[in-house]
Amino acid sequence: MQHPKKVVLAYSGGVDTSVCIPYLKNEYGISEVITFVADLGQGDDIESISQKALNSGATKSVIGNLVEDFVEKYAFPAIRANALYGEKYPLSTALARPLIAENLVKLARKLNAGAVAHGCTGKGNDQVRFDLAINALGPDLEIITPAREWKMSREEAILYGEKFGIPAPVSKKSPYSIDVNLLGRSVEAGFLEDPMQEPNEEVFAMTSSIDDSPNYPKDIEITFKNGFPIAIGNESLSPLKIIQKVNYLAGKNGFGRIDMIEDRVVGIKSREIYEAPGLLLLIKAHKELESITLNPDVLDFKNLVEKKWAQLVYQGFWFGPLKKALDGFIDATQTSVNGKVKIRLHKGNAIIIGRSSENNSLYREDLATYSKDDIFDHKQAEGFIYMWGMSNKIWAELNSKMNN
Amino acid sequence: MQHPKKVVLAYSGGVDTSVCIPYLKNEYGISEVITFVADLGQGDDIESISQKALNSGATKSVIGNLVEDFVEKYAFPAIRANALYGEKYPLSTALARPLIAENLVKLARKLNAGAVAHGCTGKGNDQVRFDLAINALGPDLEIITPAREWKMSREEAILYGEKFGIPAPVSKKSPYSIDVNLLGRSVEAGFLEDPMQEPNEEVFAMTSSIDDSPNYPKDIEITFKNGFPIAIGNESLSPLKIIQKVNYLAGKNGFGRIDMIEDRVVGIKSREIYEAPGLLLLIKAHKELESITLNPDVLDFKNLVEKKWAQLVYQGFWFGPLKKALDGFIDATQTSVNGKVKIRLHKGNAIIIGRSSENNSLYREDLATYSKDDIFDHKQAEGFIYMWGMSNKIWAELNSKMNN
Amino acid sequence: MQHPKKVVLAYSGGVDTSVCIPYLKNEYGISEVITFVADLGQGDDIESISQKALNSGATKSVIGNLVEDFVEKYAFPAIRANALYGEKYPLSTALARPLIAENLVKLARKLNAGAVAHGCTGKGNDQVRFDLAINALGPDLEIITPAREWKMSREEAILYGEKFGIPAPVSKKSPYSIDVNLLGRSVEAGFLEDPMQEPNEEVFAMTSSIDDSPNYPKDIEITFKNGFPIAIGNESLSPLKIIQKVNYLAGKNGFGRIDMIEDRVVGIKSREIYEAPGLLLLIKAHKELESITLNPDVLDFKNLVEKKWAQLVYQGFWFGPLKKALDGFIDATQTSVNGKVKIRLHKGNAIIIGRSSENNSLYREDLATYSKDDIFDHKQAEGFIYMWGMSNKIWAELNSKMNN
Amino acid sequence: MQHPKKVVLAYSGGVDTSVCIPYLKNEYGISEVITFVADLGQGDDIESISQKALNSGATKSVIGNLVEDFVEKYAFPAIRANALYGEKYPLSTALARPLIAENLVKLARKLNAGAVAHGCTGKGNDQVRFDLAINALGPDLEIITPAREWKMSREEAILYGEKFGIPAPVSKKSPYSIDVNLLGRSVEAGFLEDPMQEPNEEVFAMTSSIDDSPNYPKDIEITFKNGFPIAIGNESLSPLKIIQKVNYLAGKNGFGRIDMIEDRVVGIKSREIYEAPGLLLLIKAHKELESITLNPDVLDFKNLVEKKWAQLVYQGFWFGPLKKALDGFIDATQTSVNGKVKIRLHKGNAIIIGRSSENNSLYREDLATYSKDDIFDHKQAEGFIYMWGMSNKIWAELNSKMNN
Repeated sequence: MQHPKKVVLAYSGGVDTSVCIPYLKNEYGISEVITFVADLGQGDDIESISQKALNSGATKSVIGNLVEDFVEKYAFPAIRANALYGEKYPLSTALARPLIAENLVKLARKLNAGAVAHGCTGKGNDQVRFDLAINALGPDLEIITPAREWKMSREEAILYGEKFGIPAPVSKKSPYSIDVNLLGRSVEAGFLEDPMQEPNEEVFAMTSSIDDSPNYPKDIEITFKNGFPIAIGNESLSPLKIIQKVNYLAGKNGFGRIDMIEDRVVGIKSREIYEAPGLLLLIKAHKELESITLNPDVLDFKNLVEKKWAQLVYQGFWFGPLKKALDGFIDATQTSVNGKVKIRLHKGNAIIIGRSSENNSLYREDLATYSKDDIFDHKQAEGFIYMWGMSNKIWAELNSKMNN
Repeated sequence: MQHPKKVVLAYSGGVDTSVCIPYLKNEYGISEVITFVADLGQGDDIESISQKALNSGATKSVIGNLVEDFVEKYAFPAIRANALYGEKYPLSTALARPLIAENLVKLARKLNAGAVAHGCTGKGNDQVRFDLAINALGPDLEIITPAREWKMSREEAILYGEKFGIPAPVSKKSPYSIDVNLLGRSVEAGFLEDPMQEPNEEVFAMTSSIDDSPNYPKDIEITFKNGFPIAIGNESLSPLKIIQKVNYLAGKNGFGRIDMIEDRVVGIKSREIYEAPGLLLLIKAHKELESITLNPDVLDFKNLVEKKWAQLVYQGFWFGPLKKALDGFIDATQTSVNGKVKIRLHKGNAIIIGRSSENNSLYREDLATYSKDDIFDHKQAEGFIYMWGMSNKIWAELNSKMNN
Repeated sequence: MQHPKKVVLAYSGGVDTSVCIPYLKNEYGISEVITFVADLGQGDDIESISQKALNSGATKSVIGNLVEDFVEKYAFPAIRANALYGEKYPLSTALARPLIAENLVKLARKLNAGAVAHGCTGKGNDQVRFDLAINALGPDLEIITPAREWKMSREEAILYGEKFGIPAPVSKKSPYSIDVNLLGRSVEAGFLEDPMQEPNEEVFAMTSSIDDSPNYPKDIEITFKNGFPIAIGNESLSPLKIIQKVNYLAGKNGFGRIDMIEDRVVGIKSREIYEAPGLLLLIKAHKELESITLNPDVLDFKNLVEKKWAQLVYQGFWFGPLKKALDGFIDATQTSVNGKVKIRLHKGNAIIIGRSSENNSLYREDLATYSKDDIFDHKQAEGFIYMWGMSNKIWAELNSKMNN
Repeated sequence: MQHPKKVVLAYSGGVDTSVCIPYLKNEYGISEVITFVADLGQGDDIESISQKALNSGATKSVIGNLVEDFVEKYAFPAIRANALYGEKYPLSTALARPLIAENLVKLARKLNAGAVAHGCTGKGNDQVRFDLAINALGPDLEIITPAREWKMSREEAILYGEKFGIPAPVSKKSPYSIDVNLLGRSVEAGFLEDPMQEPNEEVFAMTSSIDDSPNYPKDIEITFKNGFPIAIGNESLSPLKIIQKVNYLAGKNGFGRIDMIEDRVVGIKSREIYEAPGLLLLIKAHKELESITLNPDVLDFKNLVEKKWAQLVYQGFWFGPLKKALDGFIDATQTSVNGKVKIRLHKGNAIIIGRSSENNSLYREDLATYSKDDIFDHKQAEGFIYMWGMSNKIWAELNSKMNN
C-alpha cells in the first residue's frame, strides 16, 4: 500500500510517539511527519514536548491550546448528560480524544496531509476513539497506527529510537500507565492489574487521602443556568475557572477517586483508577438540581439517554448521528435546570445538603407538607389506586393463590 | 355500603392506628377489630404495643415476628436486584409493606375476616403499597382506610380517641414523621420540608456523623454466593446476622445516609432522609462483584431490569406479574455472582479496595496486562474498528463538514 | 364548591354533550355555557351541530376549523415519530384531543370563562387527554365533567334533556360507539365487546373489504423531505391534500384496518376497531425510508423514543416536558430522512417495493454487493469477531459444558 | 501456525464448501476433513450431498437430522420471544446457525478433532453466528475459515476445485444467494442489490403471489399452551407438524414475504428478501394472545426483552449469558399465555379476527362494556386523573404560556 507523503501525528512526548516519527519515515516511506501537541491542561511543559518532536525528526511541530474548547464543548455537555460510564467513570480521558482528532483533521486539511497517525496500541479504547473520530471528520484520510502494527517490545522500540537519535528515557519507567488532562487522571497497569490489590497513595495526584484531608468541612454552593454551572458561591466564573476551582476544592477534601472494573470497547475487562474531582462533583450537583427541576417521566427517560450518551462517548461515537440526536433530547430538558446546590465537602465525602430553584422547582411544599398548610386532596387517593392497581387486581383475581 | 363484621387492622401503636379501632367500630359499624402488629426489627416493645391495641378496643391482638422473612424474602432479593429507587433509596421501608400485607391477608383468611384496614393517609406511598399488595393476595377482601377518609385534624383525632379511652400522647410529637425497621429509617416532614435546609444530627440514629466516626479505617470483606451475601470476613452468618453486622459496622463509620428529592407514586416530589447503612453497603458490594463476574451486555440490560424492579417495588407492585418476570431474569444471572469484595469503611466512605471471584471472574489479567505476559492479539484491532465504525463512517461520508 | 359563571363546553352534537348544557346551568349554577364545535374533517354538518347547541341552551356557539392544524401540528409529527400505540394504533383519535383542548383554553381565555367542560365518561382515555391538556395549558381553569359525575343512565339523560327542549334522538342508537375525524375512525362497544367476534363490514366506512377492493394493484410513490411526506407520485401536495389522497387510495384498496386489544390509561383492556388508512400508510412508508437513511444505533434508540412518544400521546401528555424532549431527539434525526418509497396497494396489502434516497442513503451497493465490484474488506472479519465475541468467549471458557 | 490434523467442516454441497475440502488439506496441511451435513428441512437430497463431500475428498461424511431440534429448541422459543429483527425478520436462517455449530462441536468432541471449519465469507452474519457459537461451546477449538482467507474469485475457486476432481457447477449459477430451511428462505444479491428494484415472482418459492392465492378466505384457529402453539383447529399436532401445516396454509394464501433493508452485524446495510410464512403467522398469533393475557406493564417490558433477544440471536449470541437471562424473563411470562387465536388468511393478509383465553384472559367485559352491565366505577376517574396528571400540572403552572 502506497502511503501519503505527508502525515499529521498526534504527539505526546512519550517514547512510543517519539519512535513513531522515524518509524513513519523509514518503514512507511513518509517524507513529512508533522506533529501535533495538544494542551489539555495536563500541566506539562508543552513547549519542550514540541521541541522534542522536532529533535525526533518531525518536519514541523504544532501546538494546539485546546483547554477552553475542552471544557466548554466537551466537559460541559457531559455535565448536562450526567455522563458516567459504568455508573462511575466521568469520561475525563475519553472526552479529550474527539477534540484531539478534530484538531488533527483540521491540521491535515490545512497542510494538505493525506493521513493522520497516532501511537495507540491495539488493546485500548483510545485507538477506537481516535479512529472513529477521524473517520467521522475526514473519512477520506488514511489512518496510520505504527504502534498497533510494529511487533517491537518496549525495549526494541527504545533501541529503534536510539538509532535515530531519540534518547532512551533516563528515569525508570513508571510502573503505571497514566493519562492526565484538566479533567482528571487515568491510571492503570502495574500491580493495579490485580483487582484485589488496593491502589496506594502514590497513584493519586489530584486528590488528598481521607487522612490528609482537612478536619473541618468545606461547604460550597454551585449555581447552574440551563444545566451549566456558572458560579461557585457568589462568584460567577468562566467554565475553565469553574473546573479549576472545583478540582481544587473537591480534590483537597479527598473527593473524586474511582477504582473500578471497566468493560472496554475491545471486549475485555480492565481495572482502572481515576481521579476526576471537579467533574464528578459537578455531575453530582447537576443531577441533584435535576431531581428538583425535572418531572419524573423526564428523569426516567433521561436516565436512558444519559446511559447511552456515556456509552457512545466511551466507545468513540462522539461525532455520530445518535450522539447528536441524544443531545437534541438533553438540550430540550436543560432550559428548566436552573438553581443552586449546596454541598459539604468533608473527608472524602461530597454531601448534598440543599437544593433550590427560584423559577423551576417542581417541589411544592404546599403539596408535600404534613402540616396544616397541606393543600393536597387526600380523598382522591382512592380513585387513583382504583385505576393504578386495576390491571394488577384483574390479574390477581385469576392467579392469586390465597383466594378464598 | 355494608362493611364486613370482622376486620384485620395493621397496627403500629401510634395515635392514628389507635384511633382507627373505635372509629372502625363506631363509624363503619364493624363489630370485631383484630389488630396485627408486625415485628420487623424496629426495636420497639412489641408486647406493649399489642397490649395498647387491646386497651384501645381491639377484639384480639396478634403479633407477627416477620424479621427473618423480611431479610430473606425481601432484603436479599433487593440486593440481587441492586434496587435503588431514584438511584439512591434502597427501599428499606417500601420492602416491608408487601410483607405486612401478606400477613394481614393470611390472618384475615384464618379468622374469616372480610376486610383489611390500615391507617395510611392519602398522600403517601404506603397506602398504595398496602392496597395493591392486599388486592393481589386477597382481591375479594375489602380494604378500609379510615385515616384517608376521616376529615379530622390530628387534634380532632386525639379528641376522638380520648372519648374511647385512648390517652393523648404524653410527649410532644416528634417534628418528623419517622418509620423504622431492621433495614433502615425513613424521616420526613418538619423543617426537612424545606429542601434547602440540611438535616441536623438529631434526625439520625443508625449512623454516626463523620466527625463522630472512628479515626481509623475498618476494612471488611464480604463473600457472596449466587448473589447473596453469606459471610463477613471469615465468618459465615445467617442472613439476619449479616444485616445486623453490616448495619453496625457501616453505621458506626458514618456510611449509609441519604438525603434526596423523591418522586412519589401520587405525583408529588417530597424530600426524604433515609438511613440504611447495611443494605446500602451490601448493594454496593454486590454491584462491584457483578462488575467482575457478569458480561457487559448482561450488566447493561440488568441495569434496565434493576431500575424497573426498584420502581415496581416502590410503586406497590411487589406481587405483580412483571416483578415475577424480572426475577426470572435476575435469577438467571446470579449463578455467576460468587466471590469476595473488600471494602474500607472510613469517615462516611465505603471504598471498594478489592474484588475477586475464584470461578466466575471474567477479568483476565493475561488479556488486560500491559506486561510481556499479554496474550491479547493487538493486530485484530484494525479489523474490529473497520466494522465497529463502518456505519458511522458511511454516514460521515455523506455528512461530514470537513470533507475535502 | 362555587363554579365560575361562564364555561366553555366541548360540543359534539350528541345527546350527552347536549344534555350537558342544561345540566351545567341547572345543577352547577353556571349562567353562560359557550359551546365549541371542532371541525377535524369528520365530514359532519358543523353548522347544524352548532345550531343544535344554541337550541339546547348554549349562550354562544363557536366553530373552530382545526383540520389544517390537525394535519400539520399533530399528524405530521406523529408520522416522524412512527407513532403506533401497542405497535398498532396510530393515535388517530388521541391526536385530536390536545388540539381541541388547546382551542377550548384559548376560547376560555378570550371570553374570560373560568372553566372548561367536556362530556366524557369516567372510563375512557379521552377524559384523561382532555383533562391533562387543559391542565397543561390553563392550570388555573376549573374542569367540569358532568357526564362523569351524574348518575343518570342514557335513558335518564334523554329524559332530562327533554325537560329542557332537547329532542330525543330519532333514529335508534348505533350499537357502536364511533369517533371520526380526518385521520380515522374508532369503533367500539356493541357486539365488538366480545373479542372472539369478528367485526362485520358495517363497522367500516373508510376502507374497502378485501373482496370489494380492486383486482389490480395500484403502485404509488411517496416522497419525504425531512421526514415529512411532500409528494405523491410527481405531485407535490399540501399536508392536508396528502392525507386526503392516501386515505382515498389506501382505503379503496382495503388497507388500514386495525382490530386490537388495547390497554387503556384507566387500567382495563378494551377491544377496539380502527380505520386509519392514510396515516398507517404514511407511517409505514416513513419507517421504510428511515431503514435506509438512519444508522442502526439511531434506529435502535429511536425505537425506544417512538414507543414512549406514542404512549405519552395516548395517555394524555401531549403538552408535557417529556414529549418536548422526545421531539428534540426526533427532530435531530429527521434532517436525513429524505427520499422516496414505492408501495404497491393491493387487496388489503401495502407492500413496500422500493426505497431510495439521493443524498442520504446509507445503503452502499459497493459494500453490500456479492459481485466483483465488492469493496468490502473481508479479511477484517477475523479481527472484528475476535473482539466482538471476546467477552462471550471468556465467559464460555468458565462455563461451557462441552469443554474438553 | 500449526493446525490440528483433524477438522470438522460444515458442509452444504455448494462449490465453496466443496473446494474447502482440498483447500484445508493442501493449504492448511490438515490430514482428515470430516464433513457435517445438517438436515434442517431444506428439502434437498441430503444423502447425495453427503456423497458429494466424500467425492470431494472428505475422510468421512456425517449427516445430522436436526429438524425436530430446530423446531422445538429454536423456532418455538423464538415464537415465545416474538422475535423479529428490525421488527420484520423472524430469524429463520439465523436460528439455524447455533444449532449447526452445536452439532459441529459435538462431532469434533466425539471424533477428537481439534478444529471446526465453515465456508462463510467475511461479509455476512453467518460467519459471526458460527464463530461465536463455536467459541461458546468449544472455546478451545480452532476455527478455520478458508473462504474468508483465500483471495480466490469464484472462478478461481472453481478452477482450484477442478484440480482436485471437484466438477464445475453444470447449471449457470443462480443470480441470487439463497438459504433454505424448514422455517424459511433468505434471498439476496443479484438485481435485488438495487433497493429500488422490486423482487419478481421467481424469487419466491414458499408463498403464492396475491394474484395466485385463492379467492376465498381460509380461517384457522391456533391454540397455544404456555406460549407454544399446540393445535391447529381441533387437531393437536407436534411442533414439527404445526410448522409444516402453517407454512402450507399461510404460504398458499400469499402471507409471509418480507422485503427489507437490514443492518448486518458487520456494519453495512443489505437488502434482503425472506419468506417465512409459518413462523411469521405463529408469531403474529402469539403476540395477539399475549395482548389479552399479559398485563400492560409486562407487555411493555417484554417488548424491550424481545427486541434484545432478536438482536442477540441475529448477532450470534445464542449461547451467551444474556440470552439465558432474557429467557428467564420470558419463561416467567408464558405460563399465562394460554388460549386461542382465530386468523383469516386471504390474499396475502393474515387478519386476526378473534382471540380468547379460558383461564388467563385479562379482558373483562364487565369492566369494558358500555352496556348497563358495566361494573367499572366511573367516579374514581377524578381521583386517578388528579394524581396521574399531578406532576405535569405542577410543571405547567411554572411553564404554561397561556396562563392568565
